[in-house]
Amino acid sequence: MPSPSIAQPRALISYSPHSSGGWKLQPVTLRPLREKELLVEIVASGICQTDLHFAGAESGFGVHYPRVMGHEGAGYVREIGPGTTVAKVGDPVIMSFSCCKSCEPCERGHPAHCFNFNAINFEVVPENFVFKSPASASQATQTPTDSSSPDIYGKFFGQSSFASASIVREDSIVNVSGLVESKDDLALLSPLGCGIQTGSGAIINAASAGPNDRVAVIGLGGVGLSAVMGAKIAGCTQIIGIDRHESRLELAKELGATHVIRVDPGADLGDATEAVKAATDGLGTNITLDTTGVPALIAEGVKMTAFKGRILQVGTAPETGTLTIPIHEFMVSGKQFIGVVEGDVVPREYIPELITWMKEGKLPLERIVKFYQAEDFEVAIRDMQSGQTVKPVILW
Amino acid sequence: MPSPSIAQPRALISYSPHSSGGWKLQPVTLRPLREKELLVEIVASGICQTDLHFAGAESGFGVHYPRVMGHEGAGYVREIGPGTTVAKVGDPVIMSFSCCKSCEPCERGHPAHCFNFNAINFEVVPENFVFKSPASASQATQTPTDSSSPDIYGKFFGQSSFASASIVREDSIVNVSGLVESKDDLALLSPLGCGIQTGSGAIINAASAGPNDRVAVIGLGGVGLSAVMGAKIAGCTQIIGIDRHESRLELAKELGATHVIRVDPGADLGDATEAVKAATDGLGTNITLDTTGVPALIAEGVKMTAFKGRILQVGTAPETGTLTIPIHEFMVSGKQFIGVVEGDVVPREYIPELITWMKEGKLPLERIVKFYQAEDFEVAIRDMQSGQTVKPVILW
Repeated sequence: MPSPSIAQPRALISYSPHSSGGWKLQPVTLRPLREKELLVEIVASGICQTDLHFAGAESGFGVHYPRVMGHEGAGYVREIGPGTTVAKVGDPVIMSFSCCKSCEPCERGHPAHCFNFNAINFEVVPENFVFKSPASASQATQTPTDSSSPDIYGKFFGQSSFASASIVREDSIVNVSGLVESKDDLALLSPLGCGIQTGSGAIINAASAGPNDRVAVIGLGGVGLSAVMGAKIAGCTQIIGIDRHESRLELAKELGATHVIRVDPGADLGDATEAVKAATDGLGTNITLDTTGVPALIAEGVKMTAFKGRILQVGTAPETGTLTIPIHEFMVSGKQFIGVVEGDVVPREYIPELITWMKEGKLPLERIVKFYQAEDFEVAIRDMQSGQTVKPVILW
Repeated sequence: MPSPSIAQPRALISYSPHSSGGWKLQPVTLRPLREKELLVEIVASGICQTDLHFAGAESGFGVHYPRVMGHEGAGYVREIGPGTTVAKVGDPVIMSFSCCKSCEPCERGHPAHCFNFNAINFEVVPENFVFKSPASASQATQTPTDSSSPDIYGKFFGQSSFASASIVREDSIVNVSGLVESKDDLALLSPLGCGIQTGSGAIINAASAGPNDRVAVIGLGGVGLSAVMGAKIAGCTQIIGIDRHESRLELAKELGATHVIRVDPGADLGDATEAVKAATDGLGTNITLDTTGVPALIAEGVKMTAFKGRILQVGTAPETGTLTIPIHEFMVSGKQFIGVVEGDVVPREYIPELITWMKEGKLPLERIVKFYQAEDFEVAIRDMQSGQTVKPVILW
């Protein structure tokens, strides 16, 4: 007998921007599976700022209503569509982003820099109508001609995991069968597929950090704190956490930061650069990671970086945000400014590594995750926005 | 018996900017060697824009008169100072830049990004007074108290090789004993220590280019054409040369460019980017090398680069020149902007490799070098500035 999650699924449907109260937890039905799709019973799903970004505005790139968000899901496979070999019914899976698998970056092992990343993960096509809600007919802004057809978009990041059951693209699936034993473990691991791999992967994978490196992490949210944990795993000699919240600085120290620097919102941002220089014998950092997307902080990141050092841009800047590089000085110092999405990892290779570190106690996710029941989603979002919770995870 | 080059040395002395007629070929005497110095009989020395930069202005960073320029020298060791083990008398040597050998970049194998590069190679201290000219007492702007003391600066890039004999810093020496047989060969190889290693090293060493790469080289002077030859050695699938001079484009094709694009000075620079996209099936280049230092061209270089591609900044931009990077777009595409000096090579390791390629016919330097007798230095400079000669080399 199917579980209630499957028999009577529920989903958190975004009918309009979250700020206008447009997100509703409602019963849904799901359409039948198509090729290269899986039905996954979602155990848990992390909430990320990106969910609020794409369902936080009335319109704009990638904004589509009504839609189910969620892109840090984990669960069990309950049904398999045609042509699908990635998992079998019953397998535990963690979900990550989707990619086209056929463009140059995909073929060269950089799926997070897929040419078609935006189209696949954020845009919608008719086949992305996955859910149907009894309540949706009256609220949906777009109604298919057939009133029994699904009329709510799914497949956000290939998964739309803010639901007790969802239809997932095959290439979003990381099969963790044999790696994860219990449902509780699976719930804790749900954010691996985005926030955790983004921060730790940038340090460990994209920057290949090692014991000789002095690392600065600007912004200590879920991504930044994952970067701190990653730098500790890599054995970096100095790990400098930079944030404006004292509580985050304390947490960073507990997770491996050797130094922390508070950026006072009223103070000159250059003070942070001076503090980094002071902490590094005047040399600066070999690896600087920006998780904030704030142009003025990124510019400081370039300044606090040592000769031959690398600045990794991981945080999402405003569409019009720019960085001004003094060309000659940058050349002489041999610096590198590098764009990195999702840690530039291949999730099916990297997530098993993360799970190993988790089991060895090197990736104490329990220190940043807080669980919320699905019906308390508003509390979870409020706690994330206030900074009280680093990584809220919804249980289904 | 010492050769006339040593017995009656001559030097090209810059008393004031070249444009004001301040460079004079005159007999000189040299002071005795000090620790870690060598007396080198110079066979040949390439002329580079950097010589004209540092002896082309009345004042500014690294501008000091009277001084002997020249930093692409080759010759034979004639005398060795105390504590010097890099070569013995009679060894053929090629000279390159100097570095401190003790800072972090030096210790990590990146001597061209030495913290003290500017101080060592461009600034002067009293011990850099190396030459004395009978004619200099009346023309020198700085005269030591003892009228018999040397009063002309040497050791530009550790070598000041615009002279028939010069006092060279030990760490500028690349001993090519056993690698170079004849004096003629040595003369042809003199530019290896700067221009040739800068262009080819950026492609082969800094970018680790390979057969999968599509390369664009912006600016086809000595550095750019060396980059084209380097890309051919690396087996790059596409090598796109970009310049405004038809003659350079033709030469680039002969040296290995698979495509060439002429930048019409009157046209939109974006046309070059469109042409690169068209030549690469819309993908853009994986490696883009700017040798011009022109900010507007560098910005096009960023645009013509593919997802996960790298832009290497090799050309010297104006002190105040800046590059504006659209942060979000740069991050999503996973591009990298990288500062590279002197190909980021270790000359003592890389120059022997260049000599091997030269012997194998893969680095046809004779296609870009033209020799001039020392007394014809004005012709050599004029031919370089007009573009008639890619790499003028002075014979002593």
